Amino acid sequence: MSRAYNFCAGPATLPESVLVQARDEMLDWRGTGMSVMEMSHRGDAFVEIAETAEKDVRELAGISDDYAVLFMQGGASSQFSTIPLNLLGDKTSADYVNTGIWSTKAIAEARRYGNVNVVASSEGNGFTSIPDQASWQTSADAAYLHYTPNETIGGLEFDFVPDSAGVPLVADMSSTMLSRPVDVSKFGLIYAGAQKNIGPSGLVVVIIRKDLLGKARKETPTMMNYQVIADNGSMYNTPATYSWYLAGLVFKWLKAQGGVKAMGEINRRKAEKLYGFIDANEFYVNPIDPRSRSWMNIPFILRDEALNNAFLEGANARGLLNLAGHRSVGGMRASIYNAMPEAGVDSLIQYMTEFAKERG
Amino acid sequence: MSRAYNFCAGPATLPESVLVQARDEMLDWRGTGMSVMEMSHRGDAFVEIAETAEKDVRELAGISDDYAVLFMQGGASSQFSTIPLNLLGDKTSADYVNTGIWSTKAIAEARRYGNVNVVASSEGNGFTSIPDQASWQTSADAAYLHYTPNETIGGLEFDFVPDSAGVPLVADMSSTMLSRPVDVSKFGLIYAGAQKNIGPSGLVVVIIRKDLLGKARKETPTMMNYQVIADNGSMYNTPATYSWYLAGLVFKWLKAQGGVKAMGEINRRKAEKLYGFIDANEFYVNPIDPRSRSWMNIPFILRDEALNNAFLEGANARGLLNLAGHRSVGGMRASIYNAMPEAGVDSLIQYMTEFAKERG
Repeated sequence: MSRAYNFCAGPATLPESVLVQARDEMLDWRGTGMSVMEMSHRGDAFVEIAETAEKDVRELAGISDDYAVLFMQGGASSQFSTIPLNLLGDKTSADYVNTGIWSTKAIAEARRYGNVNVVASSEGNGFTSIPDQASWQTSADAAYLHYTPNETIGGLEFDFVPDSAGVPLVADMSSTMLSRPVDVSKFGLIYAGAQKNIGPSGLVVVIIRKDLLGKARKETPTMMNYQVIADNGSMYNTPATYSWYLAGLVFKWLKAQGGVKAMGEINRRKAEKLYGFIDANEFYVNPIDPRSRSWMNIPFILRDEALNNAFLEGANARGLLNLAGHRSVGGMRASIYNAMPEAGVDSLIQYMTEFAKERG
Repeated sequence: MSRAYNFCAGPATLPESVLVQARDEMLDWRGTGMSVMEMSHRGDAFVEIAETAEKDVRELAGISDDYAVLFMQGGASSQFSTIPLNLLGDKTSADYVNTGIWSTKAIAEARRYGNVNVVASSEGNGFTSIPDQASWQTSADAAYLHYTPNETIGGLEFDFVPDSAGVPLVADMSSTMLSRPVDVSKFGLIYAGAQKNIGPSGLVVVIIRKDLLGKARKETPTMMNYQVIADNGSMYNTPATYSWYLAGLVFKWLKAQGGVKAMGEINRRKAEKLYGFIDANEFYVNPIDPRSRSWMNIPFILRDEALNNAFLEGANARGLLNLAGHRSVGGMRASIYNAMPEAGVDSLIQYMTEFAKERG
């Protein structure tokens, strides 16, 4: 088929123009006679690619020189260990907010390295709302406060940045990074697996306030030591060069779209359209507290779940792909990251309208 | 320029036909409407890609079902910690052979987790020979015996597989994996960063005998726990899917070349040609013991080092790229992995002949 609308939660759809450029440059990057993936990471050509990508993401996200930007490997799941290993320091515990499957995983991994104080949890209502910050039981001597701004599986999202009262705020922005403006200066550390809004899997971008470097425990694997990675410009070893290059192409594309402010407006509009349709149609249900609905991952169920397979088959036939919900929750999920055009959302709504009419 | 001959030590040149296929499939893999890098790692299409790659590398390298094959992230440098964290078990020390910069790095990282017994070292002669195994001071109760079959920077290579006398043998085959036949059954664990003979950086292939799984220390990051990665088919988290796909294309290419036996013959011929030329020409010197010369990385110096820049500039002008030696050793280095065609070696020799004639 021609290009489909791919609603996968990650690895996710990429801007078509980025793929076209990657395709056209595959055998020879700008007359060097090499593919980017064949270049020495220390050669002039790749260093230019790497530095430009860092410069562009700093500009897009508004990252000051007080922060290091690291291009690491291992995905967000590796960060679940890397963070406590580096940030616990001489403290004995860290605060975590539990809002879904990814928070739960981050908590379980952190518990292997220290005490975790779960300051708030929405597990009691099936992770369908964000706990009001007034109720959080934070501690002033926590090493950091960790939260997951967007739960990719649950489709639950914070509509505020928590006030961490001076404790470094740590956020897993895998699915929201660069999807709208964020005030980076409120954070101690932001991390994002690339395969949603940044590029291909195999890369995780870490933005860390420089005063948090240099506190790694002695058993920290060198490749997980933020100070070492920062001191070496993310080239302590050979980085994931091709993923870094593709991230750079995505950053250029974002700039051409008008940056994160423009993306935020488009993303808000896409999400409002789809939630508006779901809420207005008896055939489909989204269970999340309207205040805390994700702009990026929109889960929904069919009132009659016996129709799930028919719904997915019909969608596939129209080139609307990967709409099945995560295997742990079932139902449907439409992930509509930056690279999903508004026309893809329109196309999905049209299909959902027709399916409901035929089968409702 | 058109495609150059790229002698980079890694990331290294890839077969042109692999890049052509990757280019042609970039926007739409086999009619799915998606790039491979946009696919869910748990979807049918990517699972087929992943399983085929594993099947092919098992067939190419002769890997039996007694071994798990893992597609991990973080490169060989991450394995320097992962190995002691997983394999020390209830032992207090491991044996290491020191033959150059990569061995030295592996030893330094292992020392952070236990006692390292350096059983032999060629540091005394500037890492220009492999210590005779009769002289090694191995210990019967070592957790494992680690060595580096090929030192990428020094250009030094073992011409034998050590006899580890029942202790698990662990080998960093980053630069020799699949370059010739190897009897995998002699090894407890083989690991290889992909960016030399397998594919792009951001992927490390680990072949581990299954009885060595399940011994990880409790502080091992989950993403570094071989048992967890094996139990989840290398999909505990989102793997480096695009690198995995490219590795699969390289495996298919290797099969089409006749497999590792045929590659070994070609690689031997390429290396013999270049060493033969260097030894016969007064203008160039290779310092390595002839018995222990690498087939993959051939360092050489110009008798008159003042000509280094002129040599490199002339090479670049002819499309013979990345011939500068590693920044830690200087001189020149030609890396001639599987994907470097014999014509590239011929072209290099022709240039070296002419340069020596003009400047000698």
